Parts: sequence; structure tokens; C-alpha cells
Amino acid sequence: MDGSPHRIDRAALKTGRDVRRACRAGEFSGATSGLAPGFAQANLVVLPADLAGDFLRFCQRNPKPCPLLGVSDPGATDLPDLAADLDLRTDLPGYRLWRGGELIAEPEDVREWWRADLVAFAIGCSYTFEAALLAEGMTLRHVAAGSEVPMFATNIDCAPAGKFFGHMVVSMRPFRPAEAIRAVQITSRFPFVHGAPVHIGLPEMIGIKDLARPDYGAPVPVLADELPVFWACGVTPQAVIAAMRPPFAITHQPGRMLVLDLPDHRCAVL
Amino acid sequence: MDGSPHRIDRAALKTGRDVRRACRAGEFSGATSGLAPGFAQANLVVLPADLAGDFLRFCQRNPKPCPLLGVSDPGATDLPDLAADLDLRTDLPGYRLWRGGELIAEPEDVREWWRADLVAFAIGCSYTFEAALLAEGMTLRHVAAGSEVPMFATNIDCAPAGKFFGHMVVSMRPFRPAEAIRAVQITSRFPFVHGAPVHIGLPEMIGIKDLARPDYGAPVPVLADELPVFWACGVTPQAVIAAMRPPFAITHQPGRMLVLDLPDHRCAVL
Repeated sequence: MDGSPHRIDRAALKTGRDVRRACRAGEFSGATSGLAPGFAQANLVVLPADLAGDFLRFCQRNPKPCPLLGVSDPGATDLPDLAADLDLRTDLPGYRLWRGGELIAEPEDVREWWRADLVAFAIGCSYTFEAALLAEGMTLRHVAAGSEVPMFATNIDCAPAGKFFGHMVVSMRPFRPAEAIRAVQITSRFPFVHGAPVHIGLPEMIGIKDLARPDYGAPVPVLADELPVFWACGVTPQAVIAAMRPPFAITHQPGRMLVLDLPDHRCAVL
Repeated sequence: MDGSPHRIDRAALKTGRDVRRACRAGEFSGATSGLAPGFAQANLVVLPADLAGDFLRFCQRNPKPCPLLGVSDPGATDLPDLAADLDLRTDLPGYRLWRGGELIAEPEDVREWWRADLVAFAIGCSYTFEAALLAEGMTLRHVAAGSEVPMFATNIDCAPAGKFFGHMVVSMRPFRPAEAIRAVQITSRFPFVHGAPVHIGLPEMIGIKDLARPDYGAPVPVLADELPVFWACGVTPQAVIAAMRPPFAITHQPGRMLVLDLPDHRCAVL
């Protein structure tokens, strides 16, 4: 272990299984964007079982930011419908540990913190619809720049459920108007990975004051002939955890996703 | 005949056949918006047969402004797949006669101008997708105001075909951003009645200088929390006729459409 985040060539990580095994072996801890092309990735949320029912209802009521791809049995460390031979404690490149709504550590595995009462939630990730947009020849500015998509806290209230409440986080991609319309059509086919945008143009209407200062990720310019287009984002649960302060939670680190065996095309409803 | 455009109660015009018979009997010559709910309406273009091949190619190349619902046999006055017992010379509320690209008359029937070499084109009309938007509970400002939708000449070039060329005409409906996204989804289901919008926001990008001064129809306000959304419009062929000046043409009068037997729901591809 040399401490570098890339101890294995990224080009060797062609499938979800490749990425998970490299993470488990301590050979990879970097960002997963562009890895295992054709395979869906997921946001991870892990909560004690006594909060899991509330969170499940929260996801059901907020399918745009929290589209559920899978939920583990309590204490289980796998999601057999989504990934073979999965160990949720080791197979992501990076985790976040939360206590009382505070981020307390960002480890590369969470074996020592795992508990028999934990339930894991795999939430769809925009990388799947980004692949569909790129396949149509569209340009994604943050991808061209090699940076993480800009994300913003909004004033859009999530529908509360039990102890869970908070504002939606959105990702932003700029498009010329005709491309924005096409992007609505393409992403509408993928409701399990955030689906259609939740907002277009007029960022101040959803409480975004400055597009140059995202709350997560890196800024990208919006040109004079472009509109900012906003999609619900799977980082929303992390904002919710910070707001409602559960005693304990584990999430992925933004950009360091759980890479699945699920093909991207299986996420399309049409 | 008292000269009034409404010699029959509009509420009595429940089907396409009702409207066509009232027009033929000289009992109705008004606007058709809201008549025969559930039945599709069409824009009409009639051209000499020696131009019909070019115009057919023009429509094929420009399906957003000119989605073809039907084309008559040369000299025929009917479109049996679209409307029973149709006489294209009498069954619309109002026509326009064009010579050399000049509008020369707006008669209520065109029997005396009909020729054996004419070919008629029925082009889809936005009333069908407007019905779908209204059915979702969305508000259409021009409908609420009882006025005709505002339409604008743009700088968007149609794809030329033979002698036909010109700029696209668009209709504009204002929506709040989330409703605009839903409107893209709903209208995408209806490619034969103009389909998804061609532009959203940023009117100056498509050559529209002042939303308060439409080229056809009546203006509606766009509020601060709304975006103007633009759909390709079936009035485009009339702008093309004015630009390329065919020796002779007949069209409908804007707002006075051919009402069909075709149910609106049959225009949806999904």
C-alpha cells in the first residue's frame, strides 16, 4: 500500500466486479466516474434498522432524489440482485462515517464500524443517464473538464417521512435550449437514476444564488446561449443526514460510488 | 345567412362531422379551438400537383412544423382515412387564397377556385397536445384568456426541398420551469401534432425580439417565474408560401382548422 488513490490502472477496471475487487484489495480508492462503462453505479446510505423504515418511506416519497435500486436485509453486507459477491464494507473506494449528523471520518473500508443492525440502501446515480446523453453525442461540460458535476443545495423541500426531512440537492448541467429539451426526453427514460430534470433556467427560483459556487463538486460555466438544467441528486440523503442528525450513518464519499453488475440499459423504462 | 360567424351554437358542434357539416351548410365560420373535444384538427395546405412532390419532401424533411397526417390524391376533395364524407372545398370555417405568395382572399368556401390538379395536405395541429396538457391540469394562458396562441417568425431555417424554403414559425406558451419539463414529456408523446418543443427560454436566440409582439395570434404575458416554451407551428407553410411564391395555393385561415374524425389519443405514440 503506497497511499496513492490509484494503485491499479483505471483502464483495467472494466466491470463492476473489477472495481469492487480492486477496492476490497486496497488497490483502488479513487473516483468511479468513467469506470466499468455500461454498468450502473449507486449512491450508498447505511442506517441502523430502527431508522430504516422511516428512510424507506422517505425514499418512496422522494423518488427523484432517492430512487431505490436495492435495500439490504438487516445486518447483511450484500445486495445479491445488484452485484455478485458484494461486501458493502469494503467494495466502495471511499466511505463517510456520520455521528449525530457530523461527518467524523472518510475511511476506505468500514469493517470495524459495521454493526449487525445496519440496513444498506443503494440509490440510483446520474452516471447512467450521463452515459445515455453522451451516447447521443451531447457534451457534458464537467465530463469534458474532467471535474465532478456541480451540485447545489436548494430550497425545494423533500417530502418528510418519520424523522427524515431536508432540502433537495441538485446537480447542474448547462445545455443550449434545443439540447436541454432533448436531455429532458432522454433522461425521462431513466426514472431509477433520477429521471427527468426537476428545474430548468431561473436558478434563484430554487434558492441557488450563484452558479459559480456549488455546494458540492466543481463549478462549470453557463454560456450566454445556454440554460442551466437541474436534476435531483443522490447526495440529497447526505444533506438530510446533516439536517436530521441520526446517531449513526455510513454513506459513500461523493464521486466514489458502489459500482454494480446492473447494466445501464436495464435502468431504462423505454 | 345573417353574416355572423356563429349561426349555430358552438356547443352543438360535438364531433368533427358536426363541424364539417355546419361549415358546409354555411352555419359556422368561426375559430375551431375547443370544438369537437377529443377529435384532432389539422392545418390545410393545397397546392398544384406540379409542386406537390416538392412540398411532400419539404414536409418529410421538416416534421416538427409540418407533420403530415394525410395527403389527398390529385384532384380529390377528400381524405377518407381522416374524415368521413369530407369535402375539402367547403368543410373548413375559413380559407385563404394565395397567388404568387400574396394573400388575395379569405373566403368561406373554395368551390369556385378548385382545380383538378390540386393536392391537399393535412398537417397536425397543436390543439391535440394542448388537450393533453389541459387534461394533466396544466394552465394554458391563451386558453384561459380566450385568445389565439401567440406565434412568431423565427430565424430557424427549415430544411429546403425543391422550390420550398423558409423560416420556421413557432407558437409560444409560458410555463413555470417544472411545468415546462412536464410539458416536454407530454408533448413528446405526440410527434404527429408537432411533438416536443423546439426551443425554451432565450427567445433572442431564435430571432424573436419582443414576446409582446407576436407575428400571428395574440400576445400573452410571460411572468418572472416562467420560461417561454416554443413549439414548431403548422402556420409555417403559410410563411413558406409567402417566401417562395407559388403561382397558386389554398390554406386554412389560422385558427379555422379542418376538424377530423381522428381521435386525439390516436395521435400519441406512447
